Amino acid sequence: MTRTIIVGGVAGGMSTATRLRRNDESREIVIFERSGYVSFANCGLPYHIGEVIPERSSLLLQTPESLRARFNIDVHVRHEVLSIDPAARSVVVRDLESGEDKVWTYDDLVLAPGARPNTPPIPGIERGFALRTVEDLDRIKERVDALAGEHHPDNDAAVVIGGGFIGVEVAENLARRGLDITLVEAAPQIMTQLDPEMAARVRRTMEEHGIHVLTDTLVTEIGEDSVTARTAAAEGRPETEHTIHADIVITAIGVTPDSHLAIDAGLKHDARGFIVIDEYCRTSDPHIYALGDAVTKRDFITDAPVPLPLAQNANRHGRIVADVLAGREVTTQPVLGTAIIGIFDTVAATTGWTETRLRSKGRPYRAIHSHPINHAGYYPGAEGMTLKLLVDPNTDAILGAQGVGGQGVDKRIDVIATAITGGITASALADLELAYAPQFGAAKDPVALLGMINENRATGDEAVQWHELQQLMADGVPLIDVRTPGETKTDPMPGAVNYSLDEMRENIDEIRNLAKDGKVIVTCRVGQRGHVAARLLRSHGITAANLDGGYLTWADGRLALDYMANPTKRAGKH
Amino acid sequence: MTRTIIVGGVAGGMSTATRLRRNDESREIVIFERSGYVSFANCGLPYHIGEVIPERSSLLLQTPESLRARFNIDVHVRHEVLSIDPAARSVVVRDLESGEDKVWTYDDLVLAPGARPNTPPIPGIERGFALRTVEDLDRIKERVDALAGEHHPDNDAAVVIGGGFIGVEVAENLARRGLDITLVEAAPQIMTQLDPEMAARVRRTMEEHGIHVLTDTLVTEIGEDSVTARTAAAEGRPETEHTIHADIVITAIGVTPDSHLAIDAGLKHDARGFIVIDEYCRTSDPHIYALGDAVTKRDFITDAPVPLPLAQNANRHGRIVADVLAGREVTTQPVLGTAIIGIFDTVAATTGWTETRLRSKGRPYRAIHSHPINHAGYYPGAEGMTLKLLVDPNTDAILGAQGVGGQGVDKRIDVIATAITGGITASALADLELAYAPQFGAAKDPVALLGMINENRATGDEAVQWHELQQLMADGVPLIDVRTPGETKTDPMPGAVNYSLDEMRENIDEIRNLAKDGKVIVTCRVGQRGHVAARLLRSHGITAANLDGGYLTWADGRLALDYMANPTKRAGKH
Repeated sequence: MTRTIIVGGVAGGMSTATRLRRNDESREIVIFERSGYVSFANCGLPYHIGEVIPERSSLLLQTPESLRARFNIDVHVRHEVLSIDPAARSVVVRDLESGEDKVWTYDDLVLAPGARPNTPPIPGIERGFALRTVEDLDRIKERVDALAGEHHPDNDAAVVIGGGFIGVEVAENLARRGLDITLVEAAPQIMTQLDPEMAARVRRTMEEHGIHVLTDTLVTEIGEDSVTARTAAAEGRPETEHTIHADIVITAIGVTPDSHLAIDAGLKHDARGFIVIDEYCRTSDPHIYALGDAVTKRDFITDAPVPLPLAQNANRHGRIVADVLAGREVTTQPVLGTAIIGIFDTVAATTGWTETRLRSKGRPYRAIHSHPINHAGYYPGAEGMTLKLLVDPNTDAILGAQGVGGQGVDKRIDVIATAITGGITASALADLELAYAPQFGAAKDPVALLGMINENRATGDEAVQWHELQQLMADGVPLIDVRTPGETKTDPMPGAVNYSLDEMRENIDEIRNLAKDGKVIVTCRVGQRGHVAARLLRSHGITAANLDGGYLTWADGRLALDYMANPTKRAGKH
Repeated sequence: MTRTIIVGGVAGGMSTATRLRRNDESREIVIFERSGYVSFANCGLPYHIGEVIPERSSLLLQTPESLRARFNIDVHVRHEVLSIDPAARSVVVRDLESGEDKVWTYDDLVLAPGARPNTPPIPGIERGFALRTVEDLDRIKERVDALAGEHHPDNDAAVVIGGGFIGVEVAENLARRGLDITLVEAAPQIMTQLDPEMAARVRRTMEEHGIHVLTDTLVTEIGEDSVTARTAAAEGRPETEHTIHADIVITAIGVTPDSHLAIDAGLKHDARGFIVIDEYCRTSDPHIYALGDAVTKRDFITDAPVPLPLAQNANRHGRIVADVLAGREVTTQPVLGTAIIGIFDTVAATTGWTETRLRSKGRPYRAIHSHPINHAGYYPGAEGMTLKLLVDPNTDAILGAQGVGGQGVDKRIDVIATAITGGITASALADLELAYAPQFGAAKDPVALLGMINENRATGDEAVQWHELQQLMADGVPLIDVRTPGETKTDPMPGAVNYSLDEMRENIDEIRNLAKDGKVIVTCRVGQRGHVAARLLRSHGITAANLDGGYLTWADGRLALDYMANPTKRAGKH
């Protein structure tokens, strides 16, 4: 009987195993999982800490017994594979309960070992709790329950190290339990999967819910009941040190591929320790496959290997490994890196590349910001969102998109991710036929509107980005704010001259006089009236560029700059 | 000065006008609108009847004054264009207030006259209220307010004629006002934009909220306070006549292009009265353009002209007309006909072709039903939905999709509509990277799952449709129900033999004995366990076809058949 051994029994390994059984009833399928649990809901772990998911048992999707009964899979939990002998096609497996070692031979070996939490050499790092396994969850939950149970929550504090997806999710859930939370991030912003003006909104939401965020700040020690950290010096700002009370410390500082087995066996791997695979998930050994967080994926723009430790890719690739093992000609596809997070009532999502990444790689791009509502404004309950689209100005290909807001952000990012995969150009988004009734969308859906804005930009409309405004104004280009006087009073933009849109035609000459070089920048609240104004001015011979995303994007950008200038201060409202 | 005259000032006409102004500040733009309102929210009208949208004013998006101030557009409401003289490039316009006629010349004429409600020759049809304009809304609202205000709602009744989108939306909103509602539909099912097993769910939702639905039933007379109707005879069922108490009658029997102006002017039109246009929205006269409900669109599969009276297409095409008028090379795109409706807590949406339509046109297709939940089941608040995918079995192209359920149906239909537009094949849906966190989706998103199911079917997995089951069982093919005994007891399937999935391996010989021709059908609740079972049986040499969509689709189909057999009876629960 052909035997396939799978190392790791969570997302990728388990998808491989169950699909392989559906493909082949006769094969022997053996899974070794180091932890005590297989097929658990990794992505749900933070929400059990916060008791959003009240029952621990609902996170345990399968057991060795249920997998045996349904799929005739031989699952060994608490068994660690110690080494691979590719020549002999065998592995040495230790039963972590008995300590006994045993050699198992295989016909095919599938490595789905996942990744392990990073543990930088910070004194006291062993006091921090990472959240990766059910055992990790149990330890954290027990500690949090004890703290939350002491009934003096004002004194109980947690520090979360790391402001990526997991760090932010854990911080939210600890806040739900009434703990005083500080999140410490070494980079100048949290959520580096988002551009700064989008990530700033996530940070503000966290602060509105009482979470203190420190960026540009490195933890230097984890003590018994405190964390010390150092905020980097910058222009006009000395280095500062902080001691933060911490009854519990969570580390969410990223992960490293858990690839030592593969490396020790001489399989090809890259400098970062990722196992190298081809598009069939085959390693350098023809009988060994690998997938999940221990391997890189191929980027959809560059085809270069990228780390992307996400459950959905692991699941998808598990299915592909099983099909390849069954002799089918199927391959993995390039990845966009679509991801989403909910933080209290705010949703942030991303697909493809960010502006930051495009700029760092020197790639040309066009950035578009919009601030639509999720459905027709006249239907009750509409919620606002901010969308950002990144476009290749040469090919009109969509390079990435981000959304921050409430209801409906997930839908728009999913539509744009699908558009990217389908090769729909940015301007062609305007022609998408999305389901419209007033409670679900708009006759001009937010995604279609992005397409229209892009089309305008691609055919000659000039725009100015929030981060370009200050310099342009310093260079003497006037900023014409076409909002109503009431709006400009409530939400002023320093240095702007106010001509509300409906009064522009009668003030053309005045505006022309302001535009010394024949150039002006126009703005409004979201960019739409600014667009009308810019076209009107251009028809009168005045070169008008519209501030992309209007006041709202400018305010988001200012918030981001504020956070960068004052990385430990809770930013005020603009 | 160049003058563009636009006939009709709602979705398409108004989009043309405002875009044209943004393209060209110097042109004279004149709109004639027969009703008293421009740029109102057509799609919101039903919801003001139901007071979901409490303020009438929120439906009025623009006024002639606001359009003058912002866009310098010359808007004439209560002005009807009586005739076009293409040779003289002029129109005769009647001021409906003064009764005065005036000749206006134009450089370009844009016809956006929309459609008018059908009024079949039923005695008393003039007593019915159609809902198309703000004036229509006011008349209906006044009557409904009077009825709802009489404080004996048990005696107040409304009849809605027509079970399409508008009829169902109006019925829902009248029900919200406490009226006793009967909806009468001439076809064998309501919501013909959906296949019968999907539409049946909408009908059941309506019935659960007290709305009585009669299908296969023609209204024969609208009386003072009643409607008479006749339900067609069928096998085993005589013709029946009904007299239904009705304090108000709403007609929603479809629309006819309001194209008499164009036809009288000799413009090319089709047999149904639609104005014929090219991909630039040009009519047979080079100076006359047309768009919106008075023209057909091009179907995405056949490229044939199709009626599709939807606001979003009108808006989109308005923008294109304005761009073409400004000298840009832009064209309309083929249409999918994506649409959505909310009925109480149920959502139904569709894109592309239905199975009914594919079958009627003799096109080959593969149908797939699934019953996913909108997000990870372990995260609280997950809601179920039913998705249906229609695929070209030769090319794997997606031909259509439908969804019925709660939260998240709109998102999945939008993603599939985008996939169709982008040419993503059905199997490639499995590779879509959709935004996943447990509160938003699943690591295997419902859309990706459809792709996986399709891939299985495309590579050899056999399926049986709900409407094929009875005949196959009559032919002696056994039905193996692999649900648990508890499930089969609660929701039995007549004639099925129960072997729960986890016990199949030990009962292979018994099952083989049942399969006299070596063939069986397997089923479960949604089709997933059935899939596992079918593969298992096939590996043991038993040809097993899986009942597509499992028990739930079969039950939906039975409900649809029940409604067809008993078109005036409220169907019971299965």
